Amino acid sequence: MSEHATHAAVLDAIRFDANGLVPAIAQQHDTGEVLMMAWMNRDAVIETLTTRRVCYYSRSRKGLWRKGETSGQTQHLHEMLVDCDGDTLLLRVHQEGVACHTGRRTCFFRAARDGGLVEVAEPLVSPEALYGHSHG
Amino acid sequence: MSEHATHAAVLDAIRFDANGLVPAIAQQHDTGEVLMMAWMNRDAVIETLTTRRVCYYSRSRKGLWRKGETSGQTQHLHEMLVDCDGDTLLLRVHQEGVACHTGRRTCFFRAARDGGLVEVAEPLVSPEALYGHSHG
Repeated sequence: MSEHATHAAVLDAIRFDANGLVPAIAQQHDTGEVLMMAWMNRDAVIETLTTRRVCYYSRSRKGLWRKGETSGQTQHLHEMLVDCDGDTLLLRVHQEGVACHTGRRTCFFRAARDGGLVEVAEPLVSPEALYGHSHG
Repeated sequence: MSEHATHAAVLDAIRFDANGLVPAIAQQHDTGEVLMMAWMNRDAVIETLTTRRVCYYSRSRKGLWRKGETSGQTQHLHEMLVDCDGDTLLLRVHQEGVACHTGRRTCFFRAARDGGLVEVAEPLVSPEALYGHSHG
């Protein structure tokens, strides 16, 4: 049986948008921390379920984005969940290191407080350490 | 100072998409449970920050969607966070009752397991109890 046939029930339940994409929320499986939100196409869903390493679709680079391929900050899939109407995925993962390209554990580090935005998390590593001289 | 001026820093940090919308993830603030994902427009963000009750934008009804207005299952805002590139919001909330129109606590109740989808949460209330005779 091919991988596509194996994952047919999951793929059938997902309502990809007009661009063939679905939003995917990554959450650290044990702490509950919401790490990031990115997009997946059909191939990214199949690759993620097959390899158990999270692969997104990069809208800016127009291609598969194997999280951590450049930075080493990979996400290991524990469980993929599909929401009630099939238009959002929740990925319960183990995040190696940090999820955010700024070096913070989570991308959600700016909180709306007192009419402004306050940074509520510090970088754990420098972007230079993650990506070398340029962020790519 | 108007409410718009009060929330200007937050609104300026959000990159609304071509349809004027931004995805918003709702998470129960104390348990970490991811409840749902929906969309907000500018007015929904302002109303949510002003009233501290979560208001989305319904793409199907093309209007503001005050969560719980029909069902009583309101979401009280504890904190709104903006991600690193401003294109996703995380709402840390207190969810009254259930978030999902199926009567389940969370919309993410179908898990990809063994090549299929398995329901991992039961309804806590019936949709009829939430919405009366028809779901609307």
